[in-house]
Amino acid sequence: MMETKRVVATYLVETPFALERAAQAIAGEQSTGTFTAVPGETESVKDRFGARLERVTALEEVRQPSLAGARTPPGHNGIYTRGEVVVSFPLHNFGPSIPNLMAAIAGNLYELRELSGLRLLDVELPEAFAARYPGPRFGIEGTRRLTGVWDRPIIGTIVKPSVGLSADELESLVYELATAGLDFVKDDELNANPPYLPLEEKVRAVMKAVNRAADRTGKKLMYAFNITGDIDELRRHHDTVVAAGGNCVMVSINSVGFAGLAYLNGFSEVPIHGHRNQWGMLTRHGLLGMDFAVYQKLCRLAGADHLHVNGLGSKFYESDDSVVRSVQACMKPLFGGYRTMPVLSSGQWAGTAPATYERTGTVDVMHLAGGGILAHPDGPAAGAKSMKQGWEAAVRGIPLEQYAMDCPELRRAMDKFAK
Amino acid sequence: MMETKRVVATYLVETPFALERAAQAIAGEQSTGTFTAVPGETESVKDRFGARLERVTALEEVRQPSLAGARTPPGHNGIYTRGEVVVSFPLHNFGPSIPNLMAAIAGNLYELRELSGLRLLDVELPEAFAARYPGPRFGIEGTRRLTGVWDRPIIGTIVKPSVGLSADELESLVYELATAGLDFVKDDELNANPPYLPLEEKVRAVMKAVNRAADRTGKKLMYAFNITGDIDELRRHHDTVVAAGGNCVMVSINSVGFAGLAYLNGFSEVPIHGHRNQWGMLTRHGLLGMDFAVYQKLCRLAGADHLHVNGLGSKFYESDDSVVRSVQACMKPLFGGYRTMPVLSSGQWAGTAPATYERTGTVDVMHLAGGGILAHPDGPAAGAKSMKQGWEAAVRGIPLEQYAMDCPELRRAMDKFAK
Repeated sequence: MMETKRVVATYLVETPFALERAAQAIAGEQSTGTFTAVPGETESVKDRFGARLERVTALEEVRQPSLAGARTPPGHNGIYTRGEVVVSFPLHNFGPSIPNLMAAIAGNLYELRELSGLRLLDVELPEAFAARYPGPRFGIEGTRRLTGVWDRPIIGTIVKPSVGLSADELESLVYELATAGLDFVKDDELNANPPYLPLEEKVRAVMKAVNRAADRTGKKLMYAFNITGDIDELRRHHDTVVAAGGNCVMVSINSVGFAGLAYLNGFSEVPIHGHRNQWGMLTRHGLLGMDFAVYQKLCRLAGADHLHVNGLGSKFYESDDSVVRSVQACMKPLFGGYRTMPVLSSGQWAGTAPATYERTGTVDVMHLAGGGILAHPDGPAAGAKSMKQGWEAAVRGIPLEQYAMDCPELRRAMDKFAK
Repeated sequence: MMETKRVVATYLVETPFALERAAQAIAGEQSTGTFTAVPGETESVKDRFGARLERVTALEEVRQPSLAGARTPPGHNGIYTRGEVVVSFPLHNFGPSIPNLMAAIAGNLYELRELSGLRLLDVELPEAFAARYPGPRFGIEGTRRLTGVWDRPIIGTIVKPSVGLSADELESLVYELATAGLDFVKDDELNANPPYLPLEEKVRAVMKAVNRAADRTGKKLMYAFNITGDIDELRRHHDTVVAAGGNCVMVSINSVGFAGLAYLNGFSEVPIHGHRNQWGMLTRHGLLGMDFAVYQKLCRLAGADHLHVNGLGSKFYESDDSVVRSVQACMKPLFGGYRTMPVLSSGQWAGTAPATYERTGTVDVMHLAGGGILAHPDGPAAGAKSMKQGWEAAVRGIPLEQYAMDCPELRRAMDKFAK
């Protein structure tokens, strides 16, 4: 008999019960069990369809539960045990379907009262997922081809202010940015198809600027239009962008779901820039939600060519170590193949390049600076130039202070943005 | 000038900074601001597009941050202040679009390092959302019409074991349940379109049983087929169900997203049974994620005719108080109109009816028992009967012990399931 293919999920668990018992509750809840024995849950059904406990590793003990609502066993000694629990699920229970995978590996587990903490740390998926979901069609290589940038990060910015610019103001700004030496510009995640400037008008204004600039510079800016919206809008807005000659679309992944992203990837003719806003809700508490290791796999399977990972020294809570791990995760070929381009963003400027390169060892990233380029004292062109200089210094291993002696744009950026 | 319509979001905030400053960070991040002043963020742009701080109410102070990663101000006194913060957003920033609403009211906020806790407590939406999203097309009334049950809860069960039954076994079980006096049966959230029994075959087997039972009983069981899947599958599977005479579809809302649910609602010819698995991830920590008050509004707008709310005395962490609030939330007419039917489920049996009725005061609920019906010592028919008896006793205000004297099915259920 052919061996059953299995999905393997790794959890961080905290429980007032014996760890083994909590682990069994996880496996039971997510396959053949319910709260009382029912006819039909035979041994053969359990064998063929049951989730299997692969490994239970005890970690530290704590005296305070991380999440409320856990029931304690009679005579509880006040100790909550943490551990790593590995559970495998037969693929034939749900098939290579991300939406149904989520119902199995996450599902009701976060509500179990046997647990005072649960976090999905990793998931290993059988090849069948790669057959069902083609993954990003452009990825790092496709993005480099479209931008013509091969030997350094894609340098980009975000339209700021994120909301409120008129079509004319936006056109002027994008023209300025496109002629300032930037490779990439994106809409803010707050700006998709606002009533005050509907996407169609926005596309018209932006592409006018992009094409006019390309005539002058010989290089076509990559502009990520935020097409986040309801399902029918995804296709309509994608088609609007492509018909106007646009070369990138962006979605807020958590707003359209993995399902919406995979749907878009089914027809998108341009790279998909994946924004992960709302992700904090799913990850910020260490004993709830999931690690980026899981999230990025699902985003990439579903088709994200670019994926936001915050940046080093960002304005967010995330540690630099965590950002570095995220970059590395995106760079690791998935199913032996494609790589998604990590997007470094938030509080970025020329001076964040050296640490980023030192920690990640790669230039296969998109490095976005909003204020760090737009608010450069000598304007966006100087801002863009300073970013490139920052990376040159980083790659050559020359201290920024020293490199800046010959680079006035970098010098001026340091004077304004260095803390 | 016409007054700008606004979306009003209420947050529970925890911060090591002054509450007012944290509140300003929220408003700034989610509209016109970035980490440094940029040209173009003029006063007139701020006026017209800025998020507005409506109210800040200080609550308790704590000495331990709820979430990690918050930056503390220099000379921090070790105190983290909690408060309720009300922020309003101009609707013209994003329009009546649930996906873009989420980018605005949730977005990057959970990652702000000015905060050590953030929870979305409520959101008020302008009428434009009701115009864009028609909401559930069946709701309580439509479900009562289709099931022919008017004066008591819809009594239902879940196919158990949730995974592993063959087509023949499923057909037998559904026939048994349909002739046992049940109003409603559903697939488990773990069982949608599994390779071992693809949806099409499942629909064939189930509908054969449903129709055969209807011929005998004169009443057609409502069966919720779990059609959770990728976007293209939603329509295909819906059509398969409807073509076979099926009268309900179910989706895991968090697997298809609000966008997927709204898409399905655009064409569904039958009620949509909304399962909220994965919801625990979004709500279990009191200073992260969101309250059900927000979630149910968005689920209902997007088209959930039925919505899971757990049950009193469930096997989950949630308190009975919280379940009661959830039922009440679903019952409150949205935009002055439709109501979604709350679905009580998990660890339910006849004996959970009295407390449920006493606390909620309504019979406009779906009451689902898996083991509580299927594992009744005298079989599912007795299980279903015991559930109805439990509700009769509840509505008449007769203690269960007393009512059971004339109701052997209830008596036997109590002997087995009462704790």
